[in-house]
Amino acid sequence: MIKKISFIGSGNVASVFAEKFSSVNIDVINIISRNQKTGKELAQKVNAKYYKSIRKLDECDMIFICTNDDNIVKISEELPDVLVAHTSGNTSISSIKGKKRKAVIYPIQSLSKNEKVSFNEIPFCIEASDLETKAKIHELLSKISKNIHTINSSERKLIHMSAVIVSNFSNFCYIMGYEILKEKNISFDLLKPLIQHTAEKNLNREPKKNLTGPAARKDFKTIKEHLALIDNKNYKKIYKIISKTIIDKYEK
Amino acid sequence: MIKKISFIGSGNVASVFAEKFSSVNIDVINIISRNQKTGKELAQKVNAKYYKSIRKLDECDMIFICTNDDNIVKISEELPDVLVAHTSGNTSISSIKGKKRKAVIYPIQSLSKNEKVSFNEIPFCIEASDLETKAKIHELLSKISKNIHTINSSERKLIHMSAVIVSNFSNFCYIMGYEILKEKNISFDLLKPLIQHTAEKNLNREPKKNLTGPAARKDFKTIKEHLALIDNKNYKKIYKIISKTIIDKYEK
Repeated sequence: MIKKISFIGSGNVASVFAEKFSSVNIDVINIISRNQKTGKELAQKVNAKYYKSIRKLDECDMIFICTNDDNIVKISEELPDVLVAHTSGNTSISSIKGKKRKAVIYPIQSLSKNEKVSFNEIPFCIEASDLETKAKIHELLSKISKNIHTINSSERKLIHMSAVIVSNFSNFCYIMGYEILKEKNISFDLLKPLIQHTAEKNLNREPKKNLTGPAARKDFKTIKEHLALIDNKNYKKIYKIISKTIIDKYEK
Repeated sequence: MIKKISFIGSGNVASVFAEKFSSVNIDVINIISRNQKTGKELAQKVNAKYYKSIRKLDECDMIFICTNDDNIVKISEELPDVLVAHTSGNTSISSIKGKKRKAVIYPIQSLSKNEKVSFNEIPFCIEASDLETKAKIHELLSKISKNIHTINSSERKLIHMSAVIVSNFSNFCYIMGYEILKEKNISFDLLKPLIQHTAEKNLNREPKKNLTGPAARKDFKTIKEHLALIDNKNYKKIYKIISKTIIDKYEK
């Protein structure tokens, strides 16, 4: 059973995980971070020891690498041969080097230090080097979530990409709407009930069935008028290609 | 005071409005619709008379045109000279022809017959030909919403366009995510908490501050890997132009 864990990193993912595990009586032993300020802060919160260098690591059952994707290979090479996991959606489990037991624990949610999310609802993708490790990971995670899925590295990459599309790209749609209105001093508040309702509809019904608007009904006149209203060149391109894709897609 | 109203149209907007007004004791006199089936159904629900032809209209204080945008001019020409309103976001008030008193009542929400939305939260944009008409419209609407805004035709067009972008386009992002996962038999349920959380974050904080992901952090390696994973040519274009726009926008 995994009882003592340590973290490399003190950013959003490390912070959210460390605090959550600490709250369910898993001992957080070390926080290792190049950033002394956030590293020390997090260590204090979870009653762990902060070190700047990996070489100082104390004994533990498992180490989480919660750094930029690009650093995972290098950091894993420097770690002792205990169970090592990373939390990246787009990084293969094989990026963890020279360990007998490895795992990936990827939360499908954008985690942020200063924001509460309901942990029980976060879907977790897990992958492990062997069945025994998988069982251990599953047991550990089940203390914080009821929504655990075994997903291999190539599936996880697709999930990560889809997450970028449904989350970051829809967020960018909100940014475009915000800016178009702001230029004319119109409040973004007017769009908030619509944003919320659009997201909610897709929780209960296949997204295709919820699509409305000028492109879905091939209302070329409105599309043309909208395009004439958009000044920003890139926003115009985005409006055009999404509308065109919808029109082509639902052509009869 | 407006006490007796009639509707041209029996689609989603006409249905939702007629039922809502009827529920607050406004008399719905006529439902006029080329579609006999939905016209009669709606008339029965709100205890109104159904006619196929506009020429049969009974006396009333106000007529709502809830048809396709393209038909507003022609229909308004055939109506008697009472207060006439349309409900279109993208159509000028001047499309209502030959009436002394005209108005626009545009709800910023996608309304659907078979779906409950909380009316009190729907923002309504109103515009009227004169102050007296505006006061009457406001009084009528205040029976069903507390969120009423005076918005002229050119502002309303911008709001309508922004609504298309934040709602239809984000919905299309959900469609892309759904399809990419479906092709590999991965459940869209995995993305639902993220979709909901992304929308909710933007209710409380300016959208720009909520943007995360590979483009926002200029992670070109991940963007390249994602592009290599997308088969659909149009989806690839959409991924590229949105990422490029984000990268250009937040260039430092």
